[in-house]
Amino acid sequence: MSQTTNRQWRLARRPVGMVSESDFEYREEPLPRPSDGELLVRNLYISFDPAMRGWMEDRKSYIPPVGIGDVMRASGVGQVVESKLAGFAPGDFVQGLFGWQEWTVAGSGLRAPQKLAPGTPLTWHLGVLGLTGLTAYFGLLDLGKPKAGETVLVSGAAGATGSVVAQIAKHVVGCRVVGIAGGREKCAWLTRDLGLDAAIDYKQGDVQRRVGELCPQGVHVYFDNVGGEILDAALFHIAERARIVLCGGISGYNEKEPPPGPRNLMNLVTRRGRMEGFIVIDYAARFAEAAKELAGWAKAGKIQHREDLQHGIENAPRTFLRLFRGENTGKQLLQVGEPPIRV
Amino acid sequence: MSQTTNRQWRLARRPVGMVSESDFEYREEPLPRPSDGELLVRNLYISFDPAMRGWMEDRKSYIPPVGIGDVMRASGVGQVVESKLAGFAPGDFVQGLFGWQEWTVAGSGLRAPQKLAPGTPLTWHLGVLGLTGLTAYFGLLDLGKPKAGETVLVSGAAGATGSVVAQIAKHVVGCRVVGIAGGREKCAWLTRDLGLDAAIDYKQGDVQRRVGELCPQGVHVYFDNVGGEILDAALFHIAERARIVLCGGISGYNEKEPPPGPRNLMNLVTRRGRMEGFIVIDYAARFAEAAKELAGWAKAGKIQHREDLQHGIENAPRTFLRLFRGENTGKQLLQVGEPPIRV
Repeated sequence: MSQTTNRQWRLARRPVGMVSESDFEYREEPLPRPSDGELLVRNLYISFDPAMRGWMEDRKSYIPPVGIGDVMRASGVGQVVESKLAGFAPGDFVQGLFGWQEWTVAGSGLRAPQKLAPGTPLTWHLGVLGLTGLTAYFGLLDLGKPKAGETVLVSGAAGATGSVVAQIAKHVVGCRVVGIAGGREKCAWLTRDLGLDAAIDYKQGDVQRRVGELCPQGVHVYFDNVGGEILDAALFHIAERARIVLCGGISGYNEKEPPPGPRNLMNLVTRRGRMEGFIVIDYAARFAEAAKELAGWAKAGKIQHREDLQHGIENAPRTFLRLFRGENTGKQLLQVGEPPIRV
Repeated sequence: MSQTTNRQWRLARRPVGMVSESDFEYREEPLPRPSDGELLVRNLYISFDPAMRGWMEDRKSYIPPVGIGDVMRASGVGQVVESKLAGFAPGDFVQGLFGWQEWTVAGSGLRAPQKLAPGTPLTWHLGVLGLTGLTAYFGLLDLGKPKAGETVLVSGAAGATGSVVAQIAKHVVGCRVVGIAGGREKCAWLTRDLGLDAAIDYKQGDVQRRVGELCPQGVHVYFDNVGGEILDAALFHIAERARIVLCGGISGYNEKEPPPGPRNLMNLVTRRGRMEGFIVIDYAARFAEAAKELAGWAKAGKIQHREDLQHGIENAPRTFLRLFRGENTGKQLLQVGEPPIRV
């Protein structure tokens, strides 16, 4: 680690199909200097989320695409080294869209920093108390509206968001919860450690049959992180007035064109189902309230979480690819600095 | 027409793929006799609806399938000839699931009769004031929730339900309304006679491009009667917080297995859209209120409707097939008796 060089990754080109390391360009830039109204932040942890794949596409969405040649966008937690922004002082821990780099000049707009309150492990702000946990919270509770005793099915259940969804449904709301994940080890974590009622290993095939067996009352709430065939399997088994929460569709993010949608869509008609998408930033006004509740559940042991911590800015593209290979269990993070650092 | 024979069509076998006339069996049965609690009804008009195709499949749905060998189920309007049911007298006009036949013994359950109030043309009870109009009313207003100035896109817009949806959206709510239909004649009817803002002839190709051109603000409400590629085209152009009302998917009803769903489903996430299905019978408690409002709009000329009237019970299967060939404009009916009849 150098204190005079900012190692970073920029978007080299728009990926076609599966994202690869060569879609990014490694650069060593001089240490940036903050102007008035800005901070110099030393980044500590970078967050990796499937939604970042969408930011690489040149299309209209809820946030502008990352420009070719721009530092790759990502949430991160860091420490203020130099402040020209009122309300922030050196040593403060902050969070923001700081990108794939060791140092960030953060000010307003997309790179606006938020100060972190002490008393919580830093990485929690990128996971269970961050956008990941908030996505689980609002998607499940506001859109899914599960009731005690209903059956909740979650895909990507060993992922950062899915694991929080599943645990809120099970241990806070009191639902029967079935998680879908890839591999025995992840499934064992879901049932043994997180206490879900059952887990389905999609790599063992015939997810549709297994959903039918494990959800005899039908699926009242399906929280979808993956799309594709698993969404179809869930639709096949929806209960009357089911709520399908579309959070993401990682199975299609690296396809050259969007894959075909679910064949069983018309079950929404015959069973009066609802399917709804959402973007968590729309709930910003309620983040503080929700984060407080999530922190309480985490401290009470109702929500456990796992972090998959990789190391070194040089590994940023590789760490990102872990998401699409299903290699992570829990929140995918990259540590790029040692806290606390001396300023 | 014989007064001693009941000409009828029964379901001969479950269709595989496109329904055909040979899936039904023609029968001449003796005139049935009502028992206590039943009526003998002389049928006058039979209603044909795409949803009837679903009733022929042996699968769990909102209503039991028509059994092999049973008279094909359909809504109809008729006149009471003999009554052993309190509250009904010979000469009364009644409505119910009377089936593809000239005479029906109607009592309780699925064949329960409803008495029709005088003062309205009989066929309106199968169309604009019947389940067709009610489907349009509740689907558009309760699920679609259009606001004045928003853009509403309707597929199957020259059909019985779609034409009512389009006119409520345009002339009651005050939306910009674009209809999709097959053929120049239907499209001309939509814009010239019904006063829609624009019409798209799907037989002229590239529906997706045309939707984009004609809905520059995006599609706020899409009322889907057809599914398939047209649903996909609509999803491509949804506005933020769009509501997609799934009423039916006629394009897939005659497929051996459900066709693939829409590729653009993930736009529900990035644009926070909602897609919801419904079954109109769930709104039965509000039918009277809605029918009254529909009747007012129809009498005020805000809702025009067309009927495609075929004749003779011998033509029932052929009339049904008109729906799937897109041959009908407006409500598909079959007249099987001359009102009023002498009893």
